[in-house]
Amino acid sequence: MKRSNRLVVLTEYFLENPRKHIQLPYFVELCDTTKSSISEDLDIIHEVFENKGLGYLERTTGAGGGVKYIPTSSAESSKDFISSLQKKLEDPSRILPGGYLYMSDILGDPILVREIGRVFASCFAHLKIDAIVTVATKGIPLAYATASFLNVPVIIARRDPKVTEGSSVSINYVSGSSRKIQTMVLPKRSLPDGANVCIIDDFMKAGGTITGIKSLLEEFSATVQAVGVLAEADDEEDERVLTDYISLLKISPVDIQNHRVSVQPGNYQMES
Amino acid sequence: MKRSNRLVVLTEYFLENPRKHIQLPYFVELCDTTKSSISEDLDIIHEVFENKGLGYLERTTGAGGGVKYIPTSSAESSKDFISSLQKKLEDPSRILPGGYLYMSDILGDPILVREIGRVFASCFAHLKIDAIVTVATKGIPLAYATASFLNVPVIIARRDPKVTEGSSVSINYVSGSSRKIQTMVLPKRSLPDGANVCIIDDFMKAGGTITGIKSLLEEFSATVQAVGVLAEADDEEDERVLTDYISLLKISPVDIQNHRVSVQPGNYQMES
Repeated sequence: MKRSNRLVVLTEYFLENPRKHIQLPYFVELCDTTKSSISEDLDIIHEVFENKGLGYLERTTGAGGGVKYIPTSSAESSKDFISSLQKKLEDPSRILPGGYLYMSDILGDPILVREIGRVFASCFAHLKIDAIVTVATKGIPLAYATASFLNVPVIIARRDPKVTEGSSVSINYVSGSSRKIQTMVLPKRSLPDGANVCIIDDFMKAGGTITGIKSLLEEFSATVQAVGVLAEADDEEDERVLTDYISLLKISPVDIQNHRVSVQPGNYQMES
Repeated sequence: MKRSNRLVVLTEYFLENPRKHIQLPYFVELCDTTKSSISEDLDIIHEVFENKGLGYLERTTGAGGGVKYIPTSSAESSKDFISSLQKKLEDPSRILPGGYLYMSDILGDPILVREIGRVFASCFAHLKIDAIVTVATKGIPLAYATASFLNVPVIIARRDPKVTEGSSVSINYVSGSSRKIQTMVLPKRSLPDGANVCIIDDFMKAGGTITGIKSLLEEFSATVQAVGVLAEADDEEDERVLTDYISLLKISPVDIQNHRVSVQPGNYQMES
């Protein structure tokens, strides 16, 4: 195969198989070429990925050595992306009765959702993560987007058990914002014991739901390595029950009288 | 930019922006090169994509002409992929109390889910589709995966309305399998009037839920262009209320006594 064709084949392979360790002989056979040619191809791809802020190829030498694509989002492109989300959310036509903000269109856009996943995956790229956990329903697309860059499975906690998931573990917890007792369940076979997990959700008010997931995960002896939320409420009345998390956006209470929405960047910028 | 670098840049761009119409001057500037060089690059990418069964570049000439990447899955790779799913599902350790089959691990694997989305997107590549509609919860990842290849938004119907989505339209329908009356809601602003939609779900028994979505979509004057389900139940007792759909797999009732699961390819093969 010619270099030009190989570059297309290899670029596609890396993008569809992030964080998968591949030994060079696999590519040598796939492209019907020599190890040194593949090695030069990888240099080119690595350089372009780095320049475009898409991540990098991690190469290891020696027996069992190979290459792995680590997707990241550069600080600059993450910042630009987050401020584009901020502008979208500040549109007053999003204000709903009760002072809520309509966000379903953003969470419904597969390209935006994928980019949010890339930013989270980039934040957590250095951590050992075996699975992404979220709670139904709105966090699901963000959880999958993040998981697709980290190449780990997604596990979904629910409000009530389903017969199609077998026996499950459940806990009751107090929701931070409404102070109501809620239930959350996770199928027993969904998560192996002692896994390292990352929790992803769309929105966090006081943090009661995420604290609930954390308690539930204790039953699986899981270690929560990171928590990422798209938006947190900037609400001084609510005392935060959770402090260790990354948020991309911070939404102030909607000013209903003046029909105004104010959105700030989350704590992400400080962390990165 | 050198050809080798350009090929990496362009391949990445197409994969992340399927079905987006791009005029060549955009690439000329992005890669700081000439139109004829870009044109040659596109020929190379098109050839590799076609050979690898990944789809093709659709080029239009004249004023406003340009290029668009249409992702598809070749008949051969779709068939291989579906039979690998079939084998996974036939594992008797998936049998749950009540004769249900545990599938959450498959639906939780972002790489498998993305591949399922590619197969659906390929089936529906020739249709005009403005949005993917699914019902919470298990169809959500498949809906996003399909949407990410068709580059259209995802709209999620729910069992009960949420304050964070504003006013909504609801219907009651009779579930095909349990003959119970169920409710389904869709936020009013989620779907513009008269849209062309594709319904995606994980599992279909008699088809009551999908018929429910269809009735709900009538309230939005939407046209249902296609219905895709990952698996359908091969159950002779249940009369199908829906006949026009594509299924990738067909699952026979679990043989609990002999602890056996039998899974067949769905009607997909016949349709394609």
